[in-house]
This record gives sequence, structure tokens and C-alpha cells, in this order.
Amino acid sequence: MLHAVIMAGGSGTRFWPESRDARPKQLLNLAGERTMIQATVDRLGDLVGPQRVLIATNAKLAAAMREQLPGLPPSAILGEPCKRDTAPCIGLSALFVSRDDPEATMVVMPSDHVIGPDSVFQDAIRFAASLVDERPGRIVTFGIRPDYPAESFGYIERGEPLPVAVPPSFGTAKAYQVRQFREKPKVEVARQYLAAGNFYWNSGIFLWKAVTILEALAQHQPEMYGLLQRIGAAFDQPDFEAVLAREFQAIRGVSIDYAVMEHATDVVVVEAPFDWDDVGSWQAISRLRGADATGNTIAAKHVGVNTKGTIVRGPDGHLIVTLGLTDCVVVHTPDATLVANKHDEESIRQVVQLIKERGWEEHL
Amino acid sequence: MLHAVIMAGGSGTRFWPESRDARPKQLLNLAGERTMIQATVDRLGDLVGPQRVLIATNAKLAAAMREQLPGLPPSAILGEPCKRDTAPCIGLSALFVSRDDPEATMVVMPSDHVIGPDSVFQDAIRFAASLVDERPGRIVTFGIRPDYPAESFGYIERGEPLPVAVPPSFGTAKAYQVRQFREKPKVEVARQYLAAGNFYWNSGIFLWKAVTILEALAQHQPEMYGLLQRIGAAFDQPDFEAVLAREFQAIRGVSIDYAVMEHATDVVVVEAPFDWDDVGSWQAISRLRGADATGNTIAAKHVGVNTKGTIVRGPDGHLIVTLGLTDCVVVHTPDATLVANKHDEESIRQVVQLIKERGWEEHL
Repeated sequence: MLHAVIMAGGSGTRFWPESRDARPKQLLNLAGERTMIQATVDRLGDLVGPQRVLIATNAKLAAAMREQLPGLPPSAILGEPCKRDTAPCIGLSALFVSRDDPEATMVVMPSDHVIGPDSVFQDAIRFAASLVDERPGRIVTFGIRPDYPAESFGYIERGEPLPVAVPPSFGTAKAYQVRQFREKPKVEVARQYLAAGNFYWNSGIFLWKAVTILEALAQHQPEMYGLLQRIGAAFDQPDFEAVLAREFQAIRGVSIDYAVMEHATDVVVVEAPFDWDDVGSWQAISRLRGADATGNTIAAKHVGVNTKGTIVRGPDGHLIVTLGLTDCVVVHTPDATLVANKHDEESIRQVVQLIKERGWEEHL
Repeated sequence: MLHAVIMAGGSGTRFWPESRDARPKQLLNLAGERTMIQATVDRLGDLVGPQRVLIATNAKLAAAMREQLPGLPPSAILGEPCKRDTAPCIGLSALFVSRDDPEATMVVMPSDHVIGPDSVFQDAIRFAASLVDERPGRIVTFGIRPDYPAESFGYIERGEPLPVAVPPSFGTAKAYQVRQFREKPKVEVARQYLAAGNFYWNSGIFLWKAVTILEALAQHQPEMYGLLQRIGAAFDQPDFEAVLAREFQAIRGVSIDYAVMEHATDVVVVEAPFDWDDVGSWQAISRLRGADATGNTIAAKHVGVNTKGTIVRGPDGHLIVTLGLTDCVVVHTPDATLVANKHDEESIRQVVQLIKERGWEEHL
């Protein structure tokens, strides 16, 4: 059976002041009416039933997740006791998924990307699942055709195409053997990848049998696997929460790419046939929500004069007036307001650091 | 005896969102710790006692004025029932002032300018009062040496200097006969005035015997004078408030310059020996409060990165972050936020109009 594991533990600071420690990007409705985690669950449609969805998140975010996802059973929210990167998260999720369904296939995906249309996404996941069915030890990944030399993504180098028919909705997209996973590159290297034409961005969407990934962890990360086994042995025990807290904390945080992917042999990359956006910064909001005739993207009670290419966001009752602004981002929340030049928004990380230094954590 | 009449009925929109219908510029502390009306009263020092200060304001602002000026008797606040420009306001004030002191000399001054040092201002007023004492029918005005071809002020053309000694604090400032009052000019005309060298900005500060200005109104504005007389006749009558409301409303609004000054003959202009700033826009705040090493003027809980020449104002608890901004104005209030390019802030009037058109008067 197909299960979906949605990784929703991220804490990003790039959308401050809307994103906060207690309300990270995946809980925000940056791209539309629904929050990103809601849209991610919606996107699954009938592909997997609510009983087979697992939201792997930080324990501190579990209550907010349950509130935003009333259609899922409360047990669908897996609250990790601490942050330990993607490999421990995926290993723990695989344990949960394979507990009642040892033959389970699982799709792992991030919770904070915008993907569409839903039907093409579902076609793509079904196709990937068929590739796993064909050879059960296989790992299937999704690659995004890069359109600029991004330094913020890992890359996947493809090899030979697989001799399989793709669904009609795929257009020119195909599946390929993976030649190699590549870490986030410097811009010069990213330019070479782009020029080579056979590199994809790593979307962070994976399909495999739960047993496949657990075996891979046993092989490549034996210490992690041992600690995960102790957690699995405590399932249904009265002290499960205590065991989980203790053993999970003891795991060294490491990414799934580094822990498994770079060692795996039978890996396939499916070129994503769907639209994809990682919503990496405020600028993405204009792209995703569209802009009015003057290039502005407004989600606020707003009056603008001589305002162009600007994003304005705020709660209902608060009036925001912009005057003579070009390419700015104005984001108002009840306790904090950001006014930034769009071309300078990478500095937002620096801002969060400065807020900490001033001792103003109440705004983070 | 010298009386002070402070005209505090203005409603300006240039400091929105800090200034509002119910809290105009004179009630704000734009230039320092004290509000502008408080600073205006403070500036009088021992020149006139609190019993001889009259605050002529709009009835709607009277309560706020009393609250900000606890050192004045409540009767010192004269609440006009409606807005009627400066001539009716001055005429009504002259009636009040001359009621118990028929020989009163009155200094009339705006409530929303920054003037200093106080001692030089007091020297100047004393000197002006001595000029009135010398020739009781005389009108004394104060002129500001212009430093750019402003279109937003009236001008005073000076004639021959008066053969009188000025106080030591005057420096090169002198008193002159007035040749002519000039309305707010177009910029080309203002440039000619500047080049001519014998023009001052009209500061709106006047000295005269109360009877002098009442006689002038009787002569040049007989209809207004008639209505003011009816109000004066009702002093101490039980129906005074009703008479005031009815008759004052019937007066046609007109400025004192137009109503009297342009017809008056024995008018003297004293070149202001004090520093003067009309605080005409947010830019004045940098000038008056000074700027830090990066040219910013901050009165807020603020974190700035790559921020230069920018004014940031907000209440205590609200964090404002600016990123990559140059020459901007960010003003936050609990229900509205302004983000403006400093060089575009004249458009603020347009903004207020747009807010009205949208039906969002709750923010005005």
C-alpha cells in the first residue's frame, strides 16, 4: 500500500515576521488560501487515504498541525522530540509506516513547496510507485529541471533513460537512472551543471519501500539504525514517549542525501512533470499569487501611490500605505513589521540574528 | 499687559498616520519630548502668566488641549465651534483678551512651529511689544529669512529699517517697515523674492493691541466684525455657547493676511533673531532630532540592515525591521503604517484623499 510521509519540521526564518518559531513557513498561507501543509495534504487527493498519511514534525508544532489538519486522525501527526535533520526523521517515519504494513511503499515529501496541478502530481507519484513495484529495492526521486544556477539546492545527475512508458500528462518528462547526487554547489559549479543539461534540482520527494530505506540505514548508518530499532521496540509500551525522547535525541542529525542517497545504487530520477516552486523568499509570493497592473502583490488593507513591484501583506484591520516605493516588501504582523528592499532580502537571516542579539526573542 | 494667543486649530494631514483628525500635528511630539503645543506654551516662559494665555483651537480638540496643558486654567482653552481660518479666530481671541484688559497687547502665534532658543524668542517678543508701545496703532510681524524658494509660505517685502536699537541677542536682525504682504508664490516668483534679498517668509507671529486688530476688522471686514460683536455681547450670558456656535458659523472664513494685513499701513516686520522651523513634513524630523552615523532618525524598537537616511517611528512594543532602505520614512501606529520614500512625501495629501474615497475614515 502507498503511504505518504510529509516532512513538516522545518523552522525557516526567511518569511519573518510572518514565520515564527511557533509558526514556520509550512503553517502559513503564503501561496494561496490554504496553508502550505494543508495544500500538501490536499494535493494527495485519493492517492492515499487519511489513515496512511504521516506528518513528521517537531513536537512543538504538533498541536498547530492537528488544528490545521482536522481531516487527519490525531495519530497521523508524529511529533519529533528534537530536530535531527532528514535521515532520522525518515527512518523514524519508515518504522511507523512499516509497523502495520510491512510491505508499505512510502512517498516522502517536503511540506513547504508549491506543486501543481494536483492531477499531474498524482500521476507522477503513481508512476513512481509503479517503478518501485517493478523492482522493490529501488529508490525513486524527483528532479526539477533547473532554470537558473541555484546554490541553494542539491543536484541530481541523470544517466540513461529507463525503457518505460510515462503517463500522457508527463509531456517530455522521463525517468532516468541516477548517475550521482551532488551537494549544494557554488554558483560556478551550478552554472556548469546547467550548461551540461543532465542535472536536476533535488526536489526532496522520494519513493521507496519502507524496508528498503530501513535496510539502507542499517547498512550505511548502523549507529542511527540501532537507536531507531530501540524506538521501534518500544512501540505500544507505556514508556514509549520516554524512549522516543531519549533515543531520538541520541541520534546524530544528518541529511538523507548524505546518509543514504550518495551510497545507493539502484536510484531512479523522474523528471518532475508538475510545476514546482520552493517558495524560497518573499519574491516567490509575486510569482505564485501574481501581480496587478503595476506589478504589486497585495494581501492587506492597502493604499499605494507611486508604488511598483511591491509586495504588501498584513492582517485585515491594519491600513498600510506605501508611497514612492519600488521593488519592496512590506509585511505587517501585530507585533512586528518588516520593510525590505526585494533585492536585499537575503539579509533577513542577519536580521533574525540581530533580533536575538538585542534580546528581543519575543518577536521570533 | 501682554497676552499670548496661540492658534491651535490646525488639522494638517502631512504627518499621517501619527497626526489624525483628533490628534493633529500640534498635539504630537514630533520634534522632542514635549508636544508642539506644550513647547509653544513653555517657550513663553515668564513673558506672560498662565492667566494671560489663550489657546484658540477647535472645540473637538479642547479636551486633548486641556489634558496636555494642565498648567493653564481650563478657561484658557477657547474651543471654536467650527473652522473659519485665521481672521475670525484672531478676532474672537481679541474679543476675549480685551474683555478684562481693554489696553491688552496680544502676541498671536502658531502652535506647530519649532522655535528656539526660548530666551531669544522672549527677547524678540519683548522688543516687538516695545514697538507697539511706541506707536499703539502699529502691527508688528515676524519675518523669517528664506533659505529656499518655498511655495508654501506667504512673503513679506520689507522697506526702510526702523531707527531703533535691537536687543544684543538679535545679531544682525533688525526691524523694518513693511512694504507689502505677498501671497504664497509660484516657485519662479519665490526665486525672484529670494534673489531680491528683501523678502521674508511670513511666520504667522503678530503683535498688536487687541483694539487695533478689532478696529482693523471693523474697517476692512465689517460683516465679520458685526458677527463677532454679537458674540462679544453675549459674554457672561447663559446662552453664550449657543450664540457663539450660531454667529461664528455665520462668519465667512478668511485669512488674517487677506482680511487685514494686505490693507494695513503701519506694519513693521522684525527679522526673526531666533531659529525657526515650520516642521512641514517628515523630513523635518531628521533636521530637528538629528540623525545617527548612518543618517537614520529612529524613535522605535528597530533593527536596521543596509538602512540609510531613513526615519523610523513607532510605539514601544512593536518591532520594525528595515532592510536595504535608503531615504525612506516608516511610521507605525496601532492601526496604520506608512512606508514612504522621503522624496515622494508630498503625495501624502493624495493618500489621505484615497483613504477617504475607500471609506476608511476610521484611520484618519
